[in-house]
Amino acid sequence: MLVDVALSAQEITNFEIQDKSVVVIDVLRSTSTMLTALVNGCTAVIPVKEPEEAWALAAEEKALLGGERKCLKIPGFDLGNSPLEYRPEVVAGKKLILCTTNGTLALVNSRGARVLAIGALLNGRAVAGFLAQQGNPVLLACAGTRGEFALEDFLAAGLIIQELQRIWPGLKLSDKALAAQALYSVHARDLYQALLLGRNGRHLTELGFGADVAYCARTNLYQGVPIYQEGRIILP
Amino acid sequence: MLVDVALSAQEITNFEIQDKSVVVIDVLRSTSTMLTALVNGCTAVIPVKEPEEAWALAAEEKALLGGERKCLKIPGFDLGNSPLEYRPEVVAGKKLILCTTNGTLALVNSRGARVLAIGALLNGRAVAGFLAQQGNPVLLACAGTRGEFALEDFLAAGLIIQELQRIWPGLKLSDKALAAQALYSVHARDLYQALLLGRNGRHLTELGFGADVAYCARTNLYQGVPIYQEGRIILP
Repeated sequence: MLVDVALSAQEITNFEIQDKSVVVIDVLRSTSTMLTALVNGCTAVIPVKEPEEAWALAAEEKALLGGERKCLKIPGFDLGNSPLEYRPEVVAGKKLILCTTNGTLALVNSRGARVLAIGALLNGRAVAGFLAQQGNPVLLACAGTRGEFALEDFLAAGLIIQELQRIWPGLKLSDKALAAQALYSVHARDLYQALLLGRNGRHLTELGFGADVAYCARTNLYQGVPIYQEGRIILP
Repeated sequence: MLVDVALSAQEITNFEIQDKSVVVIDVLRSTSTMLTALVNGCTAVIPVKEPEEAWALAAEEKALLGGERKCLKIPGFDLGNSPLEYRPEVVAGKKLILCTTNGTLALVNSRGARVLAIGALLNGRAVAGFLAQQGNPVLLACAGTRGEFALEDFLAAGLIIQELQRIWPGLKLSDKALAAQALYSVHARDLYQALLLGRNGRHLTELGFGADVAYCARTNLYQGVPIYQEGRIILP
């Protein structure tokens, strides 16, 4: 079975995905935030691209509004895009409308997949177990940043590939999957330092979000694998 | 000074290159072949995309015709795209018109660069020395294969980055450059095996070109850095 990797939300459209399990990965920070919110009791995450969509949707859905523009909380929203804000006492039992550019675009571009899941370093091993159970060919869809490759997403793809190889015999890796696996193997012992090498990790740290970077660099903290279905993400 | 990487010939157009040193890399096999021909005494390589262009040009330029379609020699041409064919007794003192898809497209898309050089594993260290001497920001332009990422080109980019870091203090690496460097560091001890993991290495081996793959996997065999100027590649 083939494992391939898309390097940006835009690149996902180059792949035939209707028979595939697709995992959208946006480590810094949208998929780490979605996962954290859901693990902490949020009932569903509705991803949107523009603040206007979020406001319009908030009028009909009783939900928290979260999200960022240029890494900062959108004025008037309840929460930013820092996963550490999404504590149980804030999100449990509530829906969340999350406004995020790259993560939402990656999800929208992956809509035709047979199965569409949410991955991060935080749940890498669980994602691998889920993919092996599904048994479809795999596309690890790195969201990237404004069309550009992002180191941390490729690292998480590498973690998932490494975990997959332990449990799924006869796996075939594309050239990009081989490169992701190599990247992960080099940095596995200190992913926080690896994230600080990357552009987004440095930028978030400069903006004062260093604790987010450290948190998003943790691996296999959660066993949950959120699923995207009909416009919303839930934890089955 | 920033070092960045393009992952395919097509992607080169996304970069501002007029102030940069650009290195086109097509390890399997066009830049390995160009380099070998020039080191063995060929006076100039004229890269073209289509066999028709090659025939038309051959009528005016007295030159050898080399090149491939789907890895095989083009009917009527003197030589294929196997670097091992380009021995001194075949190429010395002669011009070569080389018909190759990905390599030529990468060169055409890099034409606006301040300096445009030819790189491969075979001359990685020499390319790094040349780039440090030039002092411009660097784009390592992997040709890839039909718009797709190719493992071996990214490996050669990683070798050049590793060599650059030894001689150029204060270098800044893009996220892609960091990933290339990691890939190289994982496979540095056996690049031939690494090339056999990749799609092009496997495919060439199946077609009987295993000796080419082994040859193109050798590092720092040559000190020469070919330069592209006005439609032709020469070894200064």
